[in-house]
Amino acid sequence: MSATLQQLAELIGAELQGDPTLEIRRVFPIDQAQAGDITFVANPKYLSKLKDCQASAVIVAPGLEAPDMNLLVTENPYLAFAKILTFLQGESTAPKGIMQGAHVAETAELGDGVSVYPGAVIGENVKVGAGTVLHPGVVVYADVVIGENCLLHAGAIVREGCRLGNRVILQPSAVIGADGFGFAPDGSSYYKIPQVGIVVLEDDVEIGACSCVDRAAMGVTRIGRGTKFDNLVQIGHNADIGEDCLLVSHCGVAGSSKVGNHCTFGGQTAVAGHVTVGDNVTLGGRTGVTGNVDSNQLLSGLPPVPHKEWLKMTMSLPKVPEMRKELQKLKKRLAELEAQVKED
Amino acid sequence: MSATLQQLAELIGAELQGDPTLEIRRVFPIDQAQAGDITFVANPKYLSKLKDCQASAVIVAPGLEAPDMNLLVTENPYLAFAKILTFLQGESTAPKGIMQGAHVAETAELGDGVSVYPGAVIGENVKVGAGTVLHPGVVVYADVVIGENCLLHAGAIVREGCRLGNRVILQPSAVIGADGFGFAPDGSSYYKIPQVGIVVLEDDVEIGACSCVDRAAMGVTRIGRGTKFDNLVQIGHNADIGEDCLLVSHCGVAGSSKVGNHCTFGGQTAVAGHVTVGDNVTLGGRTGVTGNVDSNQLLSGLPPVPHKEWLKMTMSLPKVPEMRKELQKLKKRLAELEAQVKED
Amino acid sequence: MSATLQQLAELIGAELQGDPTLEIRRVFPIDQAQAGDITFVANPKYLSKLKDCQASAVIVAPGLEAPDMNLLVTENPYLAFAKILTFLQGESTAPKGIMQGAHVAETAELGDGVSVYPGAVIGENVKVGAGTVLHPGVVVYADVVIGENCLLHAGAIVREGCRLGNRVILQPSAVIGADGFGFAPDGSSYYKIPQVGIVVLEDDVEIGACSCVDRAAMGVTRIGRGTKFDNLVQIGHNADIGEDCLLVSHCGVAGSSKVGNHCTFGGQTAVAGHVTVGDNVTLGGRTGVTGNVDSNQLLSGLPPVPHKEWLKMTMSLPKVPEMRKELQKLKKRLAELEAQVKED
Repeated sequence: MSATLQQLAELIGAELQGDPTLEIRRVFPIDQAQAGDITFVANPKYLSKLKDCQASAVIVAPGLEAPDMNLLVTENPYLAFAKILTFLQGESTAPKGIMQGAHVAETAELGDGVSVYPGAVIGENVKVGAGTVLHPGVVVYADVVIGENCLLHAGAIVREGCRLGNRVILQPSAVIGADGFGFAPDGSSYYKIPQVGIVVLEDDVEIGACSCVDRAAMGVTRIGRGTKFDNLVQIGHNADIGEDCLLVSHCGVAGSSKVGNHCTFGGQTAVAGHVTVGDNVTLGGRTGVTGNVDSNQLLSGLPPVPHKEWLKMTMSLPKVPEMRKELQKLKKRLAELEAQVKED
Repeated sequence: MSATLQQLAELIGAELQGDPTLEIRRVFPIDQAQAGDITFVANPKYLSKLKDCQASAVIVAPGLEAPDMNLLVTENPYLAFAKILTFLQGESTAPKGIMQGAHVAETAELGDGVSVYPGAVIGENVKVGAGTVLHPGVVVYADVVIGENCLLHAGAIVREGCRLGNRVILQPSAVIGADGFGFAPDGSSYYKIPQVGIVVLEDDVEIGACSCVDRAAMGVTRIGRGTKFDNLVQIGHNADIGEDCLLVSHCGVAGSSKVGNHCTFGGQTAVAGHVTVGDNVTLGGRTGVTGNVDSNQLLSGLPPVPHKEWLKMTMSLPKVPEMRKELQKLKKRLAELEAQVKED
Repeated sequence: MSATLQQLAELIGAELQGDPTLEIRRVFPIDQAQAGDITFVANPKYLSKLKDCQASAVIVAPGLEAPDMNLLVTENPYLAFAKILTFLQGESTAPKGIMQGAHVAETAELGDGVSVYPGAVIGENVKVGAGTVLHPGVVVYADVVIGENCLLHAGAIVREGCRLGNRVILQPSAVIGADGFGFAPDGSSYYKIPQVGIVVLEDDVEIGACSCVDRAAMGVTRIGRGTKFDNLVQIGHNADIGEDCLLVSHCGVAGSSKVGNHCTFGGQTAVAGHVTVGDNVTLGGRTGVTGNVDSNQLLSGLPPVPHKEWLKMTMSLPKVPEMRKELQKLKKRLAELEAQVKED
């Protein structure tokens, strides 16, 4: 697809400086862009690269002086770049309808323009909203409800009764609604507790490849609107994750914990079970949350402390063996001095 | 399904106080239960909630005074709850037989009442025991033996020659029998060592979603009877995990290590290769085992130390930067004092 | 398959001592080998086991005295063992061609002797090189190029446009080319940045079960020739991993980071985004790389320090609570002594 600079200015609500009829075909990074491309400068430190840039147009923040270039001026060039990239990609080219080799139960209801690829399997009483795409190997168990314009990549699995909102994206092999990890001790063995709850993924949620959101023991495991998970993330039964959170790969949130809105967890971060994390909490990579966390903090470590304090701590820990030796020396010197003062 | 209170009392071996003909349809938590439901009190701190509870009956431990309520009195209310929940769920409703769109090799032998869903693929010479259910997208390679009443969820994969006992559960996309990570250095490159062993999952094992148990290089990678893995767990080749263990998500046990019976590993715990962990070992979240561990311990940390010691340690580590400063000050004060005493 | 000792000597370029016509059927570890088997001694500490060994022949390094045994003498017995094991396994027995129940787009081009199992799905314009095997449930999206003699295990997924070299192995449920984790802040929400790049896996790469290599935002996420990943590894968008690296399970390398050649990362190791790691870097288990790392080092810890220093550190950290107490005592004693000296 292509568009004129004028069309793109309207798309992102930018001020256009230059030729409105200029035809744009691609978006490319500043050091790779060619004629016909648009690029962007989101970080002022890259402004110097503009003079060697071959792009036909540039998305910039207000205040830039570049009189010889075609510019789209907007407060958030990075967001504008993403929107233009999306626009130029065009609509999904997935063939519509149930393709040969797909298996759809007779009781399933599919909305308009749903795509079901070969090897996808849709169970009894499933409802799939208009425009949703189910790639090969997707398995949807009975009684699932999926919203409109969702994208379920190959091998994604949604177990019985779970509910997905609109525009939900499941990357390949994401697993929604596996049994929570619940067992009752029975002597020295364990008796499986049936996990009869569900998972609800609200609108605009994205779940990464091989990430797992377990169904509730009873009730709901909820992932809030707009929250995005990277790959290999684990969410335990009855956890409740708020809206607009970002969880980076290998994160885990244990059962029944509650995370607020607009939290960001670095990779390998873990949250213990039955704790509450407030809103706007940012956790550095490999943080380990063992108790409740108040809102509006930047923390790291196990247990978490303010990130700056953690940085100082990690730099000082390799000095501990030396500190131990110094401490012993001081102790000896002090004892000697004490003896000497006593003698005097 | 439903049952009378009398039936449920007999099911769990409880003493019945109240109306034996009462009809029970569901099990629900104490604060959500309605008329027709049974609930349970496993933890005495929730006893106070009973007075507002709408449930028709309650499972309790001996010693509770609640004269106006229908009670099932049993030593282990949590286990009784799980058993009643299982009973009220009823039998699996999976259609029996090989459904259209499943691919079963002619040489495969299926027991009575096996369910093979569309998109499941069963290889040559596979044996599947009676009552086992294979969901869509399950792939069973050649020469695999699967016991009775197993449940293989969508996308679960069992590679060639592996053996599953009875009542084994594989959550979606569990991978049994992938090649172990074995390579022989060949100059600066690596030559793949064929992994010709298998995996044995004994009776009542459950493997979580996207968890991986690698086949042995030679011989067997064994997971003992009754052991349960959460999601995203990794077990290396030739590892041997005992009976009745619980491994929480993101745990890893490296190749050739041996874990005893009745061990519990918190999330993200790792065990290095070629070590032995005894029986009844509980490891806190993110423990890192680098050497052998004796039986009957509760440990945490990398390397592991007694859990209480680890708690004290983690609380004190953020103080290290301040300790370094204090140490320098003390050193200076001591030197000054030494000089002064010498002068005197 | 079987072979004479003479054939095996030629295969691995070893000096033969003993009977060249001896027929060898299997390779087995030294304590399990029987008549007809060949075994190996890679580690001199196992030499003493040779006297009880039932094997018909042994692969050993030069310098061993064992006059009564059939020997293959070679500089690298472990490598020789792997090569003989591979040889005795024989060729793949996978049936050739597109099996019933596989779905191959008409525009796909398959080389000679390709095997496509039931339930595998190959998209439009895909090219698959000669001898490659695609197991059940493999999904290859449009425009993918796969080299010769690759092995894609069940449930492995390769998304649109990605490229695999020759002899690439994907273990079950490996995910190649899922979207990178890229979002532009849009108020308090996030706007998805289309991930329009690809993944390139060079020749002889092996990717473990449920491991994920994300497609580039733009451009390429590259995994270099001969590099091997264990299970559950995560590689972010635009990362670049060099040749002959080994990444153990649960490792993560974040977006845009560059790892050199011949690096080995222990389990659960994480590399932050936008950093560079040199060549021949070995990282102990659970290392956390937060900045650039020079070549030719053995490091551990978060942030990483030389491995020996890290070992000393981890042993001393449990002493910190005691050190704090000692420090307080010293402070008190010093203050008392200071007061006393002042008085005197």
